[in-house]
Parts: sequence; structure tokens; C-alpha cells
Amino acid sequence: MNRINLITLGVQDIHKSLTFYREGLGFKTSVSDRNPEVVFFNNQGTKLALFPVEELAKDIGEELIGQKQGFSGITLAYNADSKEGVDRFIGNARDAGATILKEPETVFWGGYSGYFSDPDGHIWEVAYGDMWEFDENEMLIIK
Amino acid sequence: MNRINLITLGVQDIHKSLTFYREGLGFKTSVSDRNPEVVFFNNQGTKLALFPVEELAKDIGEELIGQKQGFSGITLAYNADSKEGVDRFIGNARDAGATILKEPETVFWGGYSGYFSDPDGHIWEVAYGDMWEFDENEMLIIK
Repeated sequence: MNRINLITLGVQDIHKSLTFYREGLGFKTSVSDRNPEVVFFNNQGTKLALFPVEELAKDIGEELIGQKQGFSGITLAYNADSKEGVDRFIGNARDAGATILKEPETVFWGGYSGYFSDPDGHIWEVAYGDMWEFDENEMLIIK
Repeated sequence: MNRINLITLGVQDIHKSLTFYREGLGFKTSVSDRNPEVVFFNNQGTKLALFPVEELAKDIGEELIGQKQGFSGITLAYNADSKEGVDRFIGNARDAGATILKEPETVFWGGYSGYFSDPDGHIWEVAYGDMWEFDENEMLIIK
């Protein structure tokens, strides 16, 4: 069955981003270095990784360095099981230094949603919807 | 436990991208419209969604429209269970019109990896490593 195994975020300062995701948002990792070469988080679902953006660009083999700007056209989402869970996650992000792009609010499809950007501008949506169902891995059930 | 529930790719032409991911790469969806408003795929792990990039930008509430260019600094990865699986996935992507950024090759960490970009320039790595372990949902085991 098809799948996404890994999302790699290219980052400018891996120590800063590790701190943001581990201390700020509570993602778990066994990494103990202060400035690791790469970080893999042991989260549910598709795993999150951090890698220096210049290394990531080199790995792809394109002349991508320095081209990052504007909107990437990609968002990651954390779907909470309550409005309070949304507020808590956005609050953790704010405390960790995220830029809040949109405070959580009731949105047109009936849910409750906000957006923030991480230290490198990668955008997360944090949302709750009372119609959502989750499987045993806290992944959405898509019908 | 922390998690990523959804990755949303902003797309210019949702019919074209639906065809790429469904017919080209074999992602499953119950969507039957030719030009749906949004597509959710029923894949393993974090779910993949397609949404018009302008709508996605509007949803975030930022003046992001038209800013997409260059390297987003994000890659998605499909981790295969063999080198042949990498070649097959890259082959499917090529047949579906993807731009192959790097043909699969043996890489410095001992694995076998290639990259392609989808119709909107979103970048995927397709890789195999004989040291990887997968759980029952075909997600990587991160230790």
C-alpha cells in the first residue's frame, strides 16, 4: 500500500530547530548531540526529520541553495482531538518562538484551526474537527 | 504521542495532480470528481492531501499567492523494501510525467536513492537501505 515514510525539513540551524521541535513541541528523539548531523523523530505516522537545508539541496543534486523563499506550497498538519488540544499545541509553538500566522478560530468547514510557522518558515496547521475519526495510531481515517 | 496527521500539497491543477498521484503513483482515494475541491488519499501513515495552492494560501491568511518559487526546503520520502522497489517507484513517477532530479544510485550512507519532482515541483526521495526496519504499517522504526 502506498505511503509517505519521511518528511524532511531543511533547516538553517539544526540546534535551534531541534530545540523547537523537542523542547517546544514535544517530539521525541534519542539524539543526544547538541548539533547533530541529522535528526529523526520517533513520532506517530510519517516520521519527521531535520537536516541542514544546504545539505538537503546538495543531496538532491540541484542548484537549490539560496533559492528558498516565499510560500513552499506545503503545509503539515497536527490534528488534535479537541479545541483545547489545538490551543495547547499552538501555545507550545508560540512559547517555543513560532510565528503565529493565524490564531485558532472556528472555520468555514465547521472545525477549529490555526497556523504557525517554524524557525525556517515551514508552515503547520493545527486543527480540530468533530467529524474526524482516528485509527489506533492517531492517524486520520480517510474514507 | 506527537504526530503529523496530514501533508497538504498546494497544486496548480488538481485534476493533473490527482492523475499523477492516483494513476501514476498508485495512491488510493474515493474521490470520483474529475476536478474535486480537495483530495485526501487513504495511504499508510501521514495522509497526503491535494488542495489548490491559491486556496491553501488564502486559508493560511497570508499574502502567499504567487510567492512559490525555488526550493521549498521540504522533501517527502517513500522508502522501498528493495532497490527494485526504488526503480519501480521512480519508473512510475517518470511514466506519469515527473521530472527525475536524480536517477537512483548507490549513495554515501550505503543506500540506494533517487529524487523526482511532481507536477508542482514538490520533491520526493525514493530510497532503499538494508539497515531499515519497518513496523506493521510500513512506517520506519526510529530508535
